[in-house]
Amino acid sequence: MAQRKVGVLVGSIRKGSYSRMLANAMCGLHSDLQCRVIEIRQLQLYDQDLDENPPQEWKAFRDAIRACDAILFVTPEYNRSVPGVLKNAIDVGSRPYGKSAWAGKPAAVVSTSMGALAGFGANHHLRQSLVFLDMPAMQQPEAYCGNTPQLFDAQGKLTADDTRKFLQTFMDAFATWIEKTAAR
Amino acid sequence: MAQRKVGVLVGSIRKGSYSRMLANAMCGLHSDLQCRVIEIRQLQLYDQDLDENPPQEWKAFRDAIRACDAILFVTPEYNRSVPGVLKNAIDVGSRPYGKSAWAGKPAAVVSTSMGALAGFGANHHLRQSLVFLDMPAMQQPEAYCGNTPQLFDAQGKLTADDTRKFLQTFMDAFATWIEKTAAR
Amino acid sequence: MAQRKVGVLVGSIRKGSYSRMLANAMCGLHSDLQCRVIEIRQLQLYDQDLDENPPQEWKAFRDAIRACDAILFVTPEYNRSVPGVLKNAIDVGSRPYGKSAWAGKPAAVVSTSMGALAGFGANHHLRQSLVFLDMPAMQQPEAYCGNTPQLFDAQGKLTADDTRKFLQTFMDAFATWIEKTAAR
Amino acid sequence: MAQRKVGVLVGSIRKGSYSRMLANAMCGLHSDLQCRVIEIRQLQLYDQDLDENPPQEWKAFRDAIRACDAILFVTPEYNRSVPGVLKNAIDVGSRPYGKSAWAGKPAAVVSTSMGALAGFGANHHLRQSLVFLDMPAMQQPEAYCGNTPQLFDAQGKLTADDTRKFLQTFMDAFATWIEKTAAR
Repeated sequence: MAQRKVGVLVGSIRKGSYSRMLANAMCGLHSDLQCRVIEIRQLQLYDQDLDENPPQEWKAFRDAIRACDAILFVTPEYNRSVPGVLKNAIDVGSRPYGKSAWAGKPAAVVSTSMGALAGFGANHHLRQSLVFLDMPAMQQPEAYCGNTPQLFDAQGKLTADDTRKFLQTFMDAFATWIEKTAAR
Repeated sequence: MAQRKVGVLVGSIRKGSYSRMLANAMCGLHSDLQCRVIEIRQLQLYDQDLDENPPQEWKAFRDAIRACDAILFVTPEYNRSVPGVLKNAIDVGSRPYGKSAWAGKPAAVVSTSMGALAGFGANHHLRQSLVFLDMPAMQQPEAYCGNTPQLFDAQGKLTADDTRKFLQTFMDAFATWIEKTAAR
Repeated sequence: MAQRKVGVLVGSIRKGSYSRMLANAMCGLHSDLQCRVIEIRQLQLYDQDLDENPPQEWKAFRDAIRACDAILFVTPEYNRSVPGVLKNAIDVGSRPYGKSAWAGKPAAVVSTSMGALAGFGANHHLRQSLVFLDMPAMQQPEAYCGNTPQLFDAQGKLTADDTRKFLQTFMDAFATWIEKTAAR
Repeated sequence: MAQRKVGVLVGSIRKGSYSRMLANAMCGLHSDLQCRVIEIRQLQLYDQDLDENPPQEWKAFRDAIRACDAILFVTPEYNRSVPGVLKNAIDVGSRPYGKSAWAGKPAAVVSTSMGALAGFGANHHLRQSLVFLDMPAMQQPEAYCGNTPQLFDAQGKLTADDTRKFLQTFMDAFATWIEKTAAR
């Protein structure tokens, strides 16, 4: 397999984000996948009126997405859907019209929650956007990571072995999915 | 019926927004509903770390929501879901944990698009959030306003009579819905 | 409060259905709500060609729905959505065109699963149908009953006290919701 | 490219179904795709209790799905979701547990409606099931066929040229998608 650049988008921007911890834990799991978190907190709210003269932050973000071969989303659920901060990043990357940075990039989705429901609502709302964005979405394994506070130690290191094994399986499947569906 | 304060949230912040035009057209349609657009473009991206010392913009927004008896959402669809800018406003209003400004306020949803599909995806993703937010959502009539560029004149005034009649029916039903389900 | 007839629809037709057990446990919890399970397994697959001369089973089912003041759905998730057997019952009840038996009846939704995710996908897909059916849907409390095999004894009796307390709260809220939103 | 067997599932069983007409029109559009409609109207409602000794109709249906390389869904929307008759077929094919007939088969979705909204709700609810069923779903082009009565002549033949061109593009893309993602 070829080396693949995977952009990782984390749906929460608070410092102690469990989604961020999980994303960090996933980044080193597959030798063919060079994972790197792409920040989203600096992005101005999407406003079409700025498309002609876009903020530097938007341009840098779009370039960062374009440089990736695939995208991994790791996100909590806010109000039974995708966090606004992540959806805004998706919107920024999808524009200007006809020049989406996302098009054709294979994607995988991990949702998280502190409780049992594991971000199901965010997971599938995000998948609906991936259809429009033309991002081939890995179907299985699905990844619903619930009860996140129990998975990490005080330093934010993943300590749950069964979760680590699952994430390994997930990243192996993602590497295979990328090989099948990537544009190049 | 009592006079009711209705906060109107518009899901697009560009100047020529058709959703904004539609919201404006709806604001004067019912004498018992005092409609007012509540701005969302000034809101910082939600970050839980700011909950202890929230930005002034968040506080003002939450207060504005709390002062309303009901909420009307008028929104386009971005990437088959709720625009990030609107979802961020929803997230800001829902926090800090346990102190949501939205709880119990009756809601109605209008989705828009320039094409035929009329924002169906945004409409129903938004409704999924309303469940969690405990906002009683009017079910019928549903409002899907497609082909929006054909509905307004060059000054942004609604000129489509059948649309105006439909919106009148919609607002009448919303007034009844508010009477039935409002907390006070 | 008035006595209200509540039709209970169970989304699984197997004999040992946990959803059925849960529905049974809920039926006696509120003195103002006369709950009765309405069977769906005898319904032929909906076919519009039969509308002019419908099967007796359809007619009886539609009459049973019409006789109710409100509807309680208790359902597992099949393949991340509403079971076909329940969706078929919903389709049968909604027709012929313009003569839906469901219109205006307040509804509540309980989803179940043997695992942790608790039927979230079925819960919210069902809610999307309730919008079109014009059934005012109770928003809170949401009811996601996971790990169902742990909630009942060998005779199918609910033994989990915290679940029973939650269901009591749920049915109390449903009674209030019916009073607010029922047509009569 | 290899010859591929494509099973076509139509979500409406009435005789004059526009979805059926559309499915028929799609079947001959690509020389590498051998399309055949697989009937669903004869399937008993899924009941797990029958898994040990399943009806002959279920066995034949599951075998028919297994014999396919890929699946094309063409469906109307009933009550803002997948028709019960189609969802039941999906449920039947997915069982018994661990022996789903659908696993790994590439899929494409076409939704239809007589009005403008074009079955968006059915389209995306169906896609949520495809995630669980591990069926790689083609993302683009999406296919929302609205205003179906205007597309066919009295004999049910597709007469709308722009629709035919779109469907050709769709089937070409599907053939490419199958090559990328099929198990064999």
